[in-house]
Amino acid sequence: MDTWMRFMSSDGEVVFGRVEGGYLHEYESLDQPVPTGAVLSTRALTPLAPCAPGKIVALWNNFHALAAKLDKPVPAHPLFLLKPAGSVIGSGEPIRRPLSYAGKIVYEGELGIVIGRRCRDASAEEAAESIFGYTLVNDVTAADLLNENPHFPQWCRAKGFDTFCCMGPAIVSGFNWRAARLVTTLDGVERQNYPLADMVFSPAEQVRLISQDITLEPGDVIACGTSIGVGSIKDGATVTITIDGIGTLSNTLTVACEVAI
Amino acid sequence: MDTWMRFMSSDGEVVFGRVEGGYLHEYESLDQPVPTGAVLSTRALTPLAPCAPGKIVALWNNFHALAAKLDKPVPAHPLFLLKPAGSVIGSGEPIRRPLSYAGKIVYEGELGIVIGRRCRDASAEEAAESIFGYTLVNDVTAADLLNENPHFPQWCRAKGFDTFCCMGPAIVSGFNWRAARLVTTLDGVERQNYPLADMVFSPAEQVRLISQDITLEPGDVIACGTSIGVGSIKDGATVTITIDGIGTLSNTLTVACEVAI
Repeated sequence: MDTWMRFMSSDGEVVFGRVEGGYLHEYESLDQPVPTGAVLSTRALTPLAPCAPGKIVALWNNFHALAAKLDKPVPAHPLFLLKPAGSVIGSGEPIRRPLSYAGKIVYEGELGIVIGRRCRDASAEEAAESIFGYTLVNDVTAADLLNENPHFPQWCRAKGFDTFCCMGPAIVSGFNWRAARLVTTLDGVERQNYPLADMVFSPAEQVRLISQDITLEPGDVIACGTSIGVGSIKDGATVTITIDGIGTLSNTLTVACEVAI
Repeated sequence: MDTWMRFMSSDGEVVFGRVEGGYLHEYESLDQPVPTGAVLSTRALTPLAPCAPGKIVALWNNFHALAAKLDKPVPAHPLFLLKPAGSVIGSGEPIRRPLSYAGKIVYEGELGIVIGRRCRDASAEEAAESIFGYTLVNDVTAADLLNENPHFPQWCRAKGFDTFCCMGPAIVSGFNWRAARLVTTLDGVERQNYPLADMVFSPAEQVRLISQDITLEPGDVIACGTSIGVGSIKDGATVTITIDGIGTLSNTLTVACEVAI
């Protein structure tokens, strides 16, 4: 297992690499994982989301426990929407309540798959090999918008707002997701605690099937869907998502006037 | 009115600029419209989609005539989905039938708004000023997938396949969309012919309202939705979309074995 992070350096450069013992061993990029030779103390660096996806593919109904609770059959192909690149923030950055929206905002703790190489109509083997590693995602939703219009469910709008894709703190390669649990807390109180092994489509199977629909590019992220325990976030509340071995993703919901733009 | 295009040069460079009398007057980029001084004959250049959007926001139910035909009320806010960057092709490039899909593929002729500057929570004036110009979009859909799963309409999947966002041939700035009609033909037979003035949300109003949801970036495209006359494309058939003053976008649906990858 290796841990990969992305940072802003004090001179405004974005650096990416492998983190070990408080040091960043810089690499060219996620799709060109070649060391540059530079080694930087992480204390002088500001963490960013661990990659900059061109697109985020977010799954719906991908856990047996949630499907059972919602009384929905498990799907035959991954059901997904797209979240835009501009929705991504890293751990510690604020989730901003949209100026135009006063309704319920909901967290969803999810495993994120980070794509390492271009992937289209992949075989099972190619799909598995195209996974660079795993991260954590809080797939935030403006829940009242989802079915505001009875003729058109607004998945992309409700989940696409700026700051509504929290991601991080790191990407871990070689991670054994089958043995892991995801835990979500809201202001320190546990709200989700589910085994990743309950997934309907495994990560490699998601990549294989989604690559039949959309070419996946290096840095793209698939948010694997959530399980039971989803709930709303009050303004000022903090959501943390933890998978042992990957780390903890922590973000606080703020109203616009609290945030310097 | 100025006409803007993007090309591949014979040495593999991408060039963008203003086209006049068979010559490309090169500009730095769409968001930095500063002339480089280079002037190139367009005869030596291969046309590309006129911009490379990070995301495509595609509207549903934005024409009064189509809303009336579908017996749906017009919406209070633009209803949209996202098409990924990888779905974009230019005029003359083939629409590829997905290997995994044998069903109905549908054309939708649409006006495309090209964003020229970053735009978030825009005023009406800022929204109007952030429009760089207008292009044509064929918003292609794998129609049988849309409601394949009764619990989750698959808008992003059905409209997100590679090559399913045909765009071009040019971007025209200063274009008076209010006076224009959009005409779609299928193998030379007219199938759509509708006035753009029938739009529910005008382009500037679309930009203003969508910028409350998602930050729009330079080069992003909003596909304004289609009107009546949508229909299916048989393998081998050619769809052309024309707006006088912008040009004609032409694409042929091909099956995978016909296309060199």
